[in-house]
Amino acid sequence: MTVNQWERWVQESLAEVEEALDRFVPADAPAGLGEAMRYAVLGGGKRLRPVLVLAACEAVQGHREAALRAAVAVELIHAYSLVHDDMPCMDNDMLRRGKPTVHVQFGEAQAMLAGDAMQALAFEVLTPETGVPPELQARLVRLLARAAGQEGMAGGQAIDLASVGKPLTEAALRDMHRRKTGALLQCSVLMGAACGQPGDTGWQALSDYGAAIGLAFQVVDDILDCTQDSAVLGKTAGKDEDANKPTYVSALGLEAANQYAQRLYTEAMQALDRSGLSVGRLAWLAGRVVDRQY
Amino acid sequence: MTVNQWERWVQESLAEVEEALDRFVPADAPAGLGEAMRYAVLGGGKRLRPVLVLAACEAVQGHREAALRAAVAVELIHAYSLVHDDMPCMDNDMLRRGKPTVHVQFGEAQAMLAGDAMQALAFEVLTPETGVPPELQARLVRLLARAAGQEGMAGGQAIDLASVGKPLTEAALRDMHRRKTGALLQCSVLMGAACGQPGDTGWQALSDYGAAIGLAFQVVDDILDCTQDSAVLGKTAGKDEDANKPTYVSALGLEAANQYAQRLYTEAMQALDRSGLSVGRLAWLAGRVVDRQY
Repeated sequence: MTVNQWERWVQESLAEVEEALDRFVPADAPAGLGEAMRYAVLGGGKRLRPVLVLAACEAVQGHREAALRAAVAVELIHAYSLVHDDMPCMDNDMLRRGKPTVHVQFGEAQAMLAGDAMQALAFEVLTPETGVPPELQARLVRLLARAAGQEGMAGGQAIDLASVGKPLTEAALRDMHRRKTGALLQCSVLMGAACGQPGDTGWQALSDYGAAIGLAFQVVDDILDCTQDSAVLGKTAGKDEDANKPTYVSALGLEAANQYAQRLYTEAMQALDRSGLSVGRLAWLAGRVVDRQY
Repeated sequence: MTVNQWERWVQESLAEVEEALDRFVPADAPAGLGEAMRYAVLGGGKRLRPVLVLAACEAVQGHREAALRAAVAVELIHAYSLVHDDMPCMDNDMLRRGKPTVHVQFGEAQAMLAGDAMQALAFEVLTPETGVPPELQARLVRLLARAAGQEGMAGGQAIDLASVGKPLTEAALRDMHRRKTGALLQCSVLMGAACGQPGDTGWQALSDYGAAIGLAFQVVDDILDCTQDSAVLGKTAGKDEDANKPTYVSALGLEAANQYAQRLYTEAMQALDRSGLSVGRLAWLAGRVVDRQY
């Protein structure tokens, strides 16, 4: 397929993910909880994680229904983390994806509960009564729970919290981001891979690819945070600097940060080369991660 | 076995659960997160849910390692819900199990993250690489995720939040408590049952037992909240009344609430009678739920 065909594949995948999120996130949860959950996850977001799941599943010609559920689950985890991250006791952010944040719209208590319920729903979506082999269900839960928990995303957020106002070494910054953002992005690739039979070589290569683009994503995020304005980002720009948080730009400078993102892109592409799989979509997505403007 | 033997069984089970919690909740999670998680879940709490899991597993002579992991997982979900519930945007409680609450001790942001990480850890504990059949892993995740999410505990908390200062009908109060507290207690029994082969009759009977004692637990909680003092409860007494929350005592009066708890106990025992299983431990626990003083 050509680049335009990958673009079309992404558009079709995004439509499928939106439809699935709409189907799996219930409107009828009690006392406005469903409304807050849907507000948090529907109608916005780049959906990079779900698309990575589906692209990795295509690379191994894996179980399609399982991958779609994994795509929904990882986006639910990502979206719940944003809801909690935006709350006053964390980043205290008012704007997300161009809209008021969940706690601004629904109150802090409902925002906390909506996030909690979204995490539970992620694991519920991964474990249907029928349609996905139980072995695969258990494996997907294992991958996602580890990536979301204290060794992954939540651990990275705790480091982030403890690092405000402190200069971090590049190694410490990398450790934080590998957990905070990288773990879930890498997990997206591995959940897609787990839906098929990548073999040991393919699995390791996709794991390396996921680690490289996971970190590249964060480096580019840091660059965009200090070079783009809020209207383009759909969230408050410059907030890392305002919050005195260490970033790749503050640690390396803008030019070296750009070079680092390019190096990670190269690493990701080299990993795909040695995978022996159908990696066209994943290669194209790596380019999108590094070249994005928002 | 006699009553004393059940008592001894519970003591041994509690020791086993404490050891397992100590083993599964890591001290070395980054940036103080592990410390907050351990503070939240170790060294306190009645451990009713874990003991129900183990008792139900004994009733069906089920998979012991799976039941122990389920016991840890359900206690992690319960403990995380308390951490979030105690935060200023929810109940704003300072005292829990006779100690400062997690957000008082570690700050609000760390408390929120610790709760989030504890939920993820619950699902990680349920999905080990080896030692538990994958089919059973998937089933346990399914049961726990549903009980914790918008149809269960989180949904009940949302109703609770929306009900402050409003008179609820008894039916609405029951619906709230079936979700908020009952779902996780019933789930504890069903996770234990899922570790063996209860058959359809046994499963339905244990489900009915779990529903009855789940509700009985809350009715007794409401009674204790207005008849015991904080020192005995290890948490702030009378707070439901202070917060103008509907309770079984405010809805029915103290005497009728006591009668209702007794009726639910009878229902639970009748369910055990028709189960055809080895239900001595579960019967004894039902008595403990209704007769407890704290």
